[in-house]
Amino acid sequence: MQIKPIGLRVAVKPIKEEEITKSGIILPDTAKEKKAEGEIIAIGTDVKIKELGLVVGQRVLFGKYAGDDVKMGDEEIKILSCEDVLAVIEN
Amino acid sequence: MQIKPIGLRVAVKPIKEEEITKSGIILPDTAKEKKAEGEIIAIGTDVKIKELGLVVGQRVLFGKYAGDDVKMGDEEIKILSCEDVLAVIEN
Amino acid sequence: MQIKPIGLRVAVKPIKEEEITKSGIILPDTAKEKKAEGEIIAIGTDVKIKELGLVVGQRVLFGKYAGDDVKMGDEEIKILSCEDVLAVIEN
Amino acid sequence: MQIKPIGLRVAVKPIKEEEITKSGIILPDTAKEKKAEGEIIAIGTDVKIKELGLVVGQRVLFGKYAGDDVKMGDEEIKILSCEDVLAVIEN
Amino acid sequence: MQIKPIGLRVAVKPIKEEEITKSGIILPDTAKEKKAEGEIIAIGTDVKIKELGLVVGQRVLFGKYAGDDVKMGDEEIKILSCEDVLAVIEN
Amino acid sequence: MQIKPIGLRVAVKPIKEEEITKSGIILPDTAKEKKAEGEIIAIGTDVKIKELGLVVGQRVLFGKYAGDDVKMGDEEIKILSCEDVLAVIEN
Amino acid sequence: MQIKPIGLRVAVKPIKEEEITKSGIILPDTAKEKKAEGEIIAIGTDVKIKELGLVVGQRVLFGKYAGDDVKMGDEEIKILSCEDVLAVIEN
Repeated sequence: MQIKPIGLRVAVKPIKEEEITKSGIILPDTAKEKKAEGEIIAIGTDVKIKELGLVVGQRVLFGKYAGDDVKMGDEEIKILSCEDVLAVIEN
Repeated sequence: MQIKPIGLRVAVKPIKEEEITKSGIILPDTAKEKKAEGEIIAIGTDVKIKELGLVVGQRVLFGKYAGDDVKMGDEEIKILSCEDVLAVIEN
Repeated sequence: MQIKPIGLRVAVKPIKEEEITKSGIILPDTAKEKKAEGEIIAIGTDVKIKELGLVVGQRVLFGKYAGDDVKMGDEEIKILSCEDVLAVIEN
Repeated sequence: MQIKPIGLRVAVKPIKEEEITKSGIILPDTAKEKKAEGEIIAIGTDVKIKELGLVVGQRVLFGKYAGDDVKMGDEEIKILSCEDVLAVIEN
Repeated sequence: MQIKPIGLRVAVKPIKEEEITKSGIILPDTAKEKKAEGEIIAIGTDVKIKELGLVVGQRVLFGKYAGDDVKMGDEEIKILSCEDVLAVIEN
Repeated sequence: MQIKPIGLRVAVKPIKEEEITKSGIILPDTAKEKKAEGEIIAIGTDVKIKELGLVVGQRVLFGKYAGDDVKMGDEEIKILSCEDVLAVIEN
Repeated sequence: MQIKPIGLRVAVKPIKEEEITKSGIILPDTAKEKKAEGEIIAIGTDVKIKELGLVVGQRVLFGKYAGDDVKMGDEEIKILSCEDVLAVIEN
């Protein structure tokens, strides 16, 4: 079973906070809006998403409380408006 | 008797919650806005709907309280703005 | 005497609730916004109305309290913004 | 002395309520927003007005409290945004 | 010294109320928003102003409290957004 | 050191009020929003600024509390959105 | 590890206030919104950013509380909407 976001949205698998810290990025709690990290598992149907440079597999930064939470089997995923994706993290 | 949505709308037949759970998707009650699933039974008259990738027969995810509820005979249907369709669920 | 709506509007003759129920559609009172049905008796002057697929004679579904009520002789009509027409009902 | 509305506006000469009733149209007081009728005496400078189908001499329906009231000599006129003109009444 | 409005604006020299009344136009105090009359002394830099039909020397009608008041030497002028110019008065 | 505004903005050096009065323009305190005058010292990067007719060296009129105040060395400057520039003052 | 902003955003490394003062620019506390300076370390994926004249390495001025704060290793960075970048500071 797979999910295909509609329009200018992406589906992401959030990365647990302990894993994020190990990787070097710290998402300060003191920030105005708490941030989270995740991996893009599906991109939406709007062709503008490619212009934005978003592709499956990227690690992205977004507002922790943005978007919609859904559980697929055991996996928690988030459907985010592309507007809520702040940046891609490249290694 | 059939319904043809006008503009950027789709008509969906909601899927009962007990059936959704069996299929593997869980729609957590703790989410900001409760989600629901349904099957598209008619697409609207706006040509942009096809660009969004929405077609009759798809199983879609949407906000439980989005759109307008109508009863056709025994069947409860929902007329949704395409903006409220978050994702297509593919098996 | 006839009425010609201006812009993206249609004029509809509302159908009485007892007639609607007989036809098979039920408009639940429990819905967020009460719905009503009517027949389009005139379409507006904006060319986009045809792209929306609205023509004279169609039976349409709309929000009961949307639009503007006018009485022409004995006939009560409603002038609706096309945005408020949810769907066409086809037999 | 004449008035030439600017942009997407028309100038109308309101028709007294007793004359309206005689003509067959009744503007119910119970409507959400009280309606009024008038004759277009000048159209604005925006070319889109012609696409809307508005011309001098038409009898139009509009919200009683829409637009701006001005008195030219003895004549009371109203300058209306085209958006506030609901329909043309044709005999 | 001269003033050149920027964008979709015009500069007007307001006409005193006693002069307006003599000319035949009456601006009723009972209107929702008090009106005023003035003469256009400069038009803005946006090319769309010509499409609107506004030129220097025209007598125009506008909302009394719209725009910005400036004094040049002894002369009080008003810089108005074109949107606030309701109509041109032609003799 | 120089400042280059980004987008539809200009940088202005405000003119002191005693100098403004000498020049003939009076900016009445009684106006809805207090006005100020300044000289454009840099224009933004958006090409539409030239269409608006704004160039370095012009004396312009703007809302006293519009824009952002910055001090460069001893010089106080203001970065203004072009929308807040009401007019150019020409001698 | 690097960050690539999405859309019309830039990533900046804020410059400490004591360093800013030495350089000649003073960001007055009395301003409506406190300002800050920073160096652009990455530009977003939207092609319009180049039209705005923003490139990596520039020193820019922005609202101190605009954008989103993130820590990469020891480095604090800010992801800013391009709309919040007021000006480039050139030496």
